[in-house]
Amino acid sequence: MNRIKVFSPATVANVACGFDVIGLALDNPGDEIEMWLSSEPGIRIREIHGADLPLEPSKNVCGVALQALVKKLPDPLNAGFEMIIKKNIQPGSGIGSSAASAAGAVVAANILLGEPFPKKKLVRFAMEGERLASGSAHADNVAPAILGGFTLVRSYTPVDIVGLPTPPGLWVTVIHPQIEVKTSDAREILKHKVLMTDAIKQWGNVAALVAGLYRNDYGLIGRSLEDVIVEPVRSILIPAFQELKIKCKEAGALGGGISGSGPSVFMLSTSEEIARNVADVMNNIYQPLGLEYHIHVSTVNQEGVKVISR
Amino acid sequence: MNRIKVFSPATVANVACGFDVIGLALDNPGDEIEMWLSSEPGIRIREIHGADLPLEPSKNVCGVALQALVKKLPDPLNAGFEMIIKKNIQPGSGIGSSAASAAGAVVAANILLGEPFPKKKLVRFAMEGERLASGSAHADNVAPAILGGFTLVRSYTPVDIVGLPTPPGLWVTVIHPQIEVKTSDAREILKHKVLMTDAIKQWGNVAALVAGLYRNDYGLIGRSLEDVIVEPVRSILIPAFQELKIKCKEAGALGGGISGSGPSVFMLSTSEEIARNVADVMNNIYQPLGLEYHIHVSTVNQEGVKVISR
Repeated sequence: MNRIKVFSPATVANVACGFDVIGLALDNPGDEIEMWLSSEPGIRIREIHGADLPLEPSKNVCGVALQALVKKLPDPLNAGFEMIIKKNIQPGSGIGSSAASAAGAVVAANILLGEPFPKKKLVRFAMEGERLASGSAHADNVAPAILGGFTLVRSYTPVDIVGLPTPPGLWVTVIHPQIEVKTSDAREILKHKVLMTDAIKQWGNVAALVAGLYRNDYGLIGRSLEDVIVEPVRSILIPAFQELKIKCKEAGALGGGISGSGPSVFMLSTSEEIARNVADVMNNIYQPLGLEYHIHVSTVNQEGVKVISR
Repeated sequence: MNRIKVFSPATVANVACGFDVIGLALDNPGDEIEMWLSSEPGIRIREIHGADLPLEPSKNVCGVALQALVKKLPDPLNAGFEMIIKKNIQPGSGIGSSAASAAGAVVAANILLGEPFPKKKLVRFAMEGERLASGSAHADNVAPAILGGFTLVRSYTPVDIVGLPTPPGLWVTVIHPQIEVKTSDAREILKHKVLMTDAIKQWGNVAALVAGLYRNDYGLIGRSLEDVIVEPVRSILIPAFQELKIKCKEAGALGGGISGSGPSVFMLSTSEEIARNVADVMNNIYQPLGLEYHIHVSTVNQEGVKVISR
């Protein structure tokens, strides 16, 4: 095989209480990457559709992630990579746009090369794409994009990724208000120090979220979706955030919060019906604001990057 | 039935990364509480063996916990409680001495009264004993003492306790150096604020510890037993702490840390043989120091307070 097309999912990082450590993958939207090997060494991005992003590999998250992979190949490579990227996840949306592209590129390349690396190892390479995109090689989007489901980044030194179970019937509703919040800016407004009392609340909730996922305990998951550290600071950047949160819960959502560094807001629900009701609530709140926005309703993606064709 | 004797276990709070939220119960040591109903209303502590503690109910953790329970009874009580307390857990040891007594008292009373409260509800009452003992109504010792196994305190407002699974074959070795570290002092030296970067590491580890317990993943449990917040501050109060930690791990322990607010240090192991080797290592380090100390080797207590006789 020397040609492949993959779907690489959008992801929700942090998942309320799990700032920088928890993430989950969506079944839609997602980027598509078509990749093929060529006899000429090097990486060439032939086309990018759907977003205005650099074709130059060293300035593109796919290129950088792929370079990281190539560097770690056991044997030197006598071939090159060509690719076409179709961006369906808008850059800056807060649902892992750069992560999806970087994850898709390394998974596609790994398959084309006969899978020299286990999936978890690919997270390291995709993280280099994140470093280019945001200045920080975080893994909380690329891990779920590659592995699917919910993931935990226990540690960065060394990178230690833990796959978590996904309770059945969990749906995600995401609203993406079309305002610009750069990951780097969203990180800058965070405080360097946090109250010990808040930190304790946060790790109680993170631990409970993990327990809830293992127990299929939707009530516990809902109660644990509280972020006392980051949300109070970042939510001021997002129009009608508090109203969204309150009314989506009233409509049956388990809970939710800011997706990644925003501006998207996610809500978890236990059925498609509730997830769509939550979408209606979001619509009702955002329509009068006169802002552009997109709403996605999705199941949790269980497998990460998927092969569409080969 | 109007007479009962219960065993109430020692507990390890915090369990390294889970400061103020995680705890686990031991099968030994434990306090013993004999309790019976009498026709005369009120609470009377008849004898206390093994420690110099006040008999006056309002100054004794058992009395205070029991008062909290009585206050919440649906109907007024036409009887009183009499009890004899046998302290096998030394006060100030850091393995939940006050929690064991408070937990034992409320469980015994609940059984004598025909179990008007579910077990989880009893945690609230026993917490009042903790408030008397340390000035803070924490639940990370009383929850495992009452419920057994590993427990998580997700939240205090409202109190939300989550039982966690115990992987098979887990052993605990505890060394109690006979130095005085008061819980209130140990809390005072803690910092009011913590670095965000440290807090993230901590909640990554707490989440991973919970996942490890659900997965029976001893490697993950071991890797997650790191406390970057409290241990660096409190461990200076404990003689040879770093040496203990390093050499116990070399002897096969998964990991460990300070038990509660210290001075006890605990280590988790995957077999009795390793747990006893770890005890030997502790002995070898502490014997030359000329300090008094006790070492306990125990399985994880799965059921909490146990009825010895009725």
